[in-house]
Amino acid sequence: MLYVVGIGSGSKLHITKEAEEVLKNVDLIVCYKNYKKYVERFNKPIYTTGMTKEIDRVEYALKEAKYKDVALVSSGDPTIYGLASLAYEINSIKNYNVEIRVIPGITAASLASSVLGSPLNHDFVVISFSDLLTPLSTILKRFEYALKGDFVICIYNPLSKKRKEPFLKAIDILKDFVKDVNYIIGIVKNAGRDNEEYLITNFEEFYKNLEKYLEFIDMNTIIIIGNSSTKIINNKMVTPRGYLNKYKIL
Amino acid sequence: MLYVVGIGSGSKLHITKEAEEVLKNVDLIVCYKNYKKYVERFNKPIYTTGMTKEIDRVEYALKEAKYKDVALVSSGDPTIYGLASLAYEINSIKNYNVEIRVIPGITAASLASSVLGSPLNHDFVVISFSDLLTPLSTILKRFEYALKGDFVICIYNPLSKKRKEPFLKAIDILKDFVKDVNYIIGIVKNAGRDNEEYLITNFEEFYKNLEKYLEFIDMNTIIIIGNSSTKIINNKMVTPRGYLNKYKIL
Ligand SMILES: C[S@@+](CC[C@H](N)C(=O)[O-])C[C@H]1O[C@@H](n2cnc3c(N)ncnc32)[C@H](O)[C@@H]1O
Ligand SMILES: C[S@@+](CC[C@H](N)C(=O)[O-])C[C@H]1O[C@@H](n2cnc3c(N)ncnc32)[C@H](O)[C@@H]1O
Repeated sequence: MLYVVGIGSGSKLHITKEAEEVLKNVDLIVCYKNYKKYVERFNKPIYTTGMTKEIDRVEYALKEAKYKDVALVSSGDPTIYGLASLAYEINSIKNYNVEIRVIPGITAASLASSVLGSPLNHDFVVISFSDLLTPLSTILKRFEYALKGDFVICIYNPLSKKRKEPFLKAIDILKDFVKDVNYIIGIVKNAGRDNEEYLITNFEEFYKNLEKYLEFIDMNTIIIIGNSSTKIINNKMVTPRGYLNKYKIL
Repeated sequence: MLYVVGIGSGSKLHITKEAEEVLKNVDLIVCYKNYKKYVERFNKPIYTTGMTKEIDRVEYALKEAKYKDVALVSSGDPTIYGLASLAYEINSIKNYNVEIRVIPGITAASLASSVLGSPLNHDFVVISFSDLLTPLSTILKRFEYALKGDFVICIYNPLSKKRKEPFLKAIDILKDFVKDVNYIIGIVKNAGRDNEEYLITNFEEFYKNLEKYLEFIDMNTIIIIGNSSTKIINNKMVTPRGYLNKYKIL
């Protein structure tokens, strides 16, 4: 049996009871090498591989899962840019016939939202800026539609040392949308972990100090761009749901 | 102190350690009346109000939070169509000066995704169909941009007995997008709860049996519409992330 398990931030605080129980009971844990530290406390054999070795990791997990209970671990939620779909695909193509169960976890967008205030409190988009598996044109087209729709936007995999182009091109698109709206931008690094850091700013300030922000943002960072009604309230980033307008309190 | 706490599905399995600890330690729990059953086990005084009494609930929680530790409980994540932003807003407008902390939870989209397979494994949109606080035109505009961007779409608050118009209008829009793509549709009712139910279908089948589906869908239901690459694999709804295309395995 293969469990594809989401562990949230990696901190003990953000894991669910269900994920905790599964990890306590499996025979083997398979994960990305940098996440090993989050699952060592379960005292199980751990198989790890590095970045871009996802197929390898999933194949290994599936093969072992024919005879054992295996947990394939993702940060956050395993169905959000995690390995759940790849597990279903390979299981079918290679006829492994392994039973697969997904154990949901708190995704980075929710973790970051709680740190920033409440930026996701209206319709939003989740988009990855990694052009390793998605053409850059698709990423930029989606980003533009998200802005046209006035969605709050959560950017996963914003940039890496070697991959800055999608981010910079998106900033150019965003610039065209900034007329009356000086978008609020929240940036959270390692949400829910011991080394958590965050910044709340607006587009103007962000653009003026682009170099500084590019320095700060890394692969453990998620960026949330507000919509036209997002505001800062007592240093928190808040997207109103609309109650106060509706009931004429504002 | 006010904690705005997400409890996931309501089941003990989907709550985080952090939320569990907070609920064990507060002096008062405030929540929507139908969620009382999920927090009774903490043996705390509970204040509840009904639907559309959100402002009331938040005001009460804030007032009490001046002298006590209060948990304002949301299902799922409290910043996703929950009461976190309203708490920040009222706290500021009425100068309550209460310290607010958000405790994130697993949102319905993740809970439903794990039940259906892995439909959220690429860029997606989260949108509410409730036109109580958002103009219908905004909802429909956003839905259309989501389709244009080929996003997977999660629909919260899809319809209620009295509010079917936004849903029916959206189906009309979706119909125009169905040329080559026979969108896969996943419907999950009470995800992660004892009475969980789900269906996986496609647009054609859905549209042909609209009455039947309208009967099934209620306010405890979330709907996930796949994008152009979403498929059914061993009866599960899966949106590939793209690894197999990239590495020429497919
Ligand atoms: C391959 S994706 C995995 C996402 C994960 N499955 C989830 O649901 O959060 C990795 C990206 O998620 C985001 N991310 C994951 N965990 C994070 C955290 N604790 N803080 C900030 N960003 C995080 C970052 O954008 C990172 O580049
Ligand atoms: C007011 S919103 C609250 C959302 C919640 N804060 C969250 O993050 O999931 C209520 C809507 O969320 C969706 N929902 C919440 N919990 C659900 C569950 N367990 N199963 C299916 N849908 C759910 C339904 O669409 C419902 O109409």
